Amino acid sequence: MIPTITAFARSPDGGRGLARDMRVRWALEETGQRYEVRLVSFKAMKEPDHLALHPFGQIPTYEEGDLALFETGSIILHIAERHEGLLPRDEKARARAITWMFAALNTVEPPILDRETTALSERRETWGEARLRLTEDRIRVRLSQLSARLGDAEWLDGAFSAGDLLMVSVLMRLGPPIVDEFPNLSAYVARGQARPAYRRAFEAQLEVFRRGGGGG
Amino acid sequence: MIPTITAFARSPDGGRGLARDMRVRWALEETGQRYEVRLVSFKAMKEPDHLALHPFGQIPTYEEGDLALFETGSIILHIAERHEGLLPRDEKARARAITWMFAALNTVEPPILDRETTALSERRETWGEARLRLTEDRIRVRLSQLSARLGDAEWLDGAFSAGDLLMVSVLMRLGPPIVDEFPNLSAYVARGQARPAYRRAFEAQLEVFRRGGGGG
Repeated sequence: MIPTITAFARSPDGGRGLARDMRVRWALEETGQRYEVRLVSFKAMKEPDHLALHPFGQIPTYEEGDLALFETGSIILHIAERHEGLLPRDEKARARAITWMFAALNTVEPPILDRETTALSERRETWGEARLRLTEDRIRVRLSQLSARLGDAEWLDGAFSAGDLLMVSVLMRLGPPIVDEFPNLSAYVARGQARPAYRRAFEAQLEVFRRGGGGG
Repeated sequence: MIPTITAFARSPDGGRGLARDMRVRWALEETGQRYEVRLVSFKAMKEPDHLALHPFGQIPTYEEGDLALFETGSIILHIAERHEGLLPRDEKARARAITWMFAALNTVEPPILDRETTALSERRETWGEARLRLTEDRIRVRLSQLSARLGDAEWLDGAFSAGDLLMVSVLMRLGPPIVDEFPNLSAYVARGQARPAYRRAFEAQLEVFRRGGGGG
């Protein structure tokens, strides 16, 4: 059964692959799965039909027969558990890869989203600039810890996993200026983006943006 | 093999069960597991021995033979996948329960932590009070969505699961003033706290605080 995911009808990132459907597309491509995409407008995201699928009115969602899931982390774990390519077979290595999924979403991404929220919604407040610097310092603490752990390794724990997929996605969301202060992290992001599955997923989401008339 | 978790030697919450080891203790109690606890000082958390276990220098960690995990969500999922009591057996219900684990940690908790960070670290900034109100409005949006989904149900998706364990824990972290604006959510938190496994876990973490001389 081919699953259906939802994505923004008009992504606010201009097709740069920062919306969370990109993460799910990438996971589907890594595991060689076909999928359908249903585009949702900002208005429709807050209406009852979509809220029945996603109680917090966001994208992506994942529908496969009568199973409906939301939350990117959960969707990717669901895909990774059922198809080869995103989690090692060894039980302990698998638990460690899942740990990195949670670390990406719960420890590294929150200060990055905090900075984004301040930049988007609090920039015009009197505190906007000062608070932006504060959030950037918090991000640097996390990235220096991540950089120390990654060291010279190619991926976070042996082979590429769903943990790397999410960590690379989270670092992409932050963007180069701060990530580039940690050369092993920017090389890590580049390795992720060079994967054929990443490229296919990126092109697919960019095509939505182009067709939507959002491009030049 | 009895696992060992780490907890704060002196929890900053004064034994109120808000530190993240409480979530893991609760999961271990729900599944009837014995466990050992190793207490870690704030200083030791940032030293090489602990950073080898937890690259971001936090608690809890989980050690079971030669397997070492960090991230509360990952530890609880590991426990829940291996022992009865925290995830339904039906594959689809299981995927939905895991979705609620991610929703608790990635969608509901971030604005709650944002408020906490502002209250703790930015209160003396000129923007402290104004920003606190802003974070509280964001929390209310999430809680109203969660409240609408829960409705009159006892738990988020059928039987009590690891998703409820984490959601109740996240709402506990926020505390009554805002949660009580949503009566079905405060009743939901109370149901979680009334569970025998919760009580055992709560007493165990309180005992650490009492022995540590932190109490009166």
